[in-house]
Amino acid sequence: MMINENTATPINADEQFAKLGLILPPAPAPLGVYKPCLVDGKYLYLSGHGPLQNDKTLIIGRIGQQLDMEQGKLAARQVGLTMLATIMANIGGLNKIKRVIKVLGMVNCTADFEKHPYIINGCSELFASIWGPDNGVGVRSAVGFGSLPDNIPVEIEALFELK
Amino acid sequence: MMINENTATPINADEQFAKLGLILPPAPAPLGVYKPCLVDGKYLYLSGHGPLQNDKTLIIGRIGQQLDMEQGKLAARQVGLTMLATIMANIGGLNKIKRVIKVLGMVNCTADFEKHPYIINGCSELFASIWGPDNGVGVRSAVGFGSLPDNIPVEIEALFELK
Amino acid sequence: MMINENTATPINADEQFAKLGLILPPAPAPLGVYKPCLVDGKYLYLSGHGPLQNDKTLIIGRIGQQLDMEQGKLAARQVGLTMLATIMANIGGLNKIKRVIKVLGMVNCTADFEKHPYIINGCSELFASIWGPDNGVGVRSAVGFGSLPDNIPVEIEALFELK
Repeated sequence: MMINENTATPINADEQFAKLGLILPPAPAPLGVYKPCLVDGKYLYLSGHGPLQNDKTLIIGRIGQQLDMEQGKLAARQVGLTMLATIMANIGGLNKIKRVIKVLGMVNCTADFEKHPYIINGCSELFASIWGPDNGVGVRSAVGFGSLPDNIPVEIEALFELK
Repeated sequence: MMINENTATPINADEQFAKLGLILPPAPAPLGVYKPCLVDGKYLYLSGHGPLQNDKTLIIGRIGQQLDMEQGKLAARQVGLTMLATIMANIGGLNKIKRVIKVLGMVNCTADFEKHPYIINGCSELFASIWGPDNGVGVRSAVGFGSLPDNIPVEIEALFELK
Repeated sequence: MMINENTATPINADEQFAKLGLILPPAPAPLGVYKPCLVDGKYLYLSGHGPLQNDKTLIIGRIGQQLDMEQGKLAARQVGLTMLATIMANIGGLNKIKRVIKVLGMVNCTADFEKHPYIINGCSELFASIWGPDNGVGVRSAVGFGSLPDNIPVEIEALFELK
């Protein structure tokens, strides 16, 4: 059972991460003129991240065309892992994050696709498993885009509050 | 005439709401792993909201296909009412909001559609009628998406400043 | 050579702007119920801006259809110039901006387009030339939309920190 933040023992996100046995891809280098990560006072902003794999290749394909819903959800989870890699590389630990404030889940899918929230849950469930069901979950929009860079299936940007 | 915030009598948003005789849909339950509403200090974030109707069904259809511009603008107004319902359910009153800071208006429309600002005005005019022509109006982007969850015509997320 | 903020002589954005000999379009009037610019404490928010030209017309066309990649990148640069015009008109100088925090680059392109970061670099490189390679560069998402108002090729919104 996940330890809730309201109990006497607060969640330690780095311990939680270790317990889950997650493997992170390398923190991605920027593909343009932007910073992957920016700290502003007690806030940490993450640029839009794609599903980088451990071998440094991206998961590619449009949902409803090359990828199905389950593959899309796994891609969103991989985006989440890539975001964790950027956080680790930039501030040195997941435990420095107090909570998720906002997530924008961008889905590259066919025009008739309707299950964007299901896809982005792949990332949100990962964050909830790291920072807990309250602090790991923020506001969110999960919506369908016309296209994404390199034809990746999912891109996600986020805003976190630091401790 | 709307009472302007610069006059001696400041706008009371709850009185304004009552005066307009608006009927709100039920505050929507989240469709995924997110919070509909999050308070961070003096800020209130709202997740992307859809056009929930009083009978708990959503307005459905793409603008330029199943829905025309006027129906799209009414859908955006209904999104605004749904956002008001979430605010009421979470912080207990519209008068606790000082002003609108930012709105992202997401329009589900055909690729040749060009009048996104007209559509999202359906929500923005509602907010202006509640919080006034200055405090009820913030920055905004109103743009066309490839698809939206459940094929809703409009989804809107927003950031407010609290009093 | 650009003067880096870490040297003894900090960048003066207004001098930098003058040195570059840039010509700004007129600051755009809002196309709907929104403010082009909003100041909240030490933050400046800009609404989604389009590529307004000096003659007050907009650059029009979808990338991959009417416009190619280079035209798209120039359009993004023109959006950046339009954003500078709004900043000048609202706070009276570029030097009052401390840094770019966040940019959302919205690209109107065909569904098979994959080079969104290249397009939005047209704006980001402009900002870097004004505020420097560190303060002029923030987090960013650069992604493809289904359609944009008036069929403009690029729309960009941004968040800045004030001095």
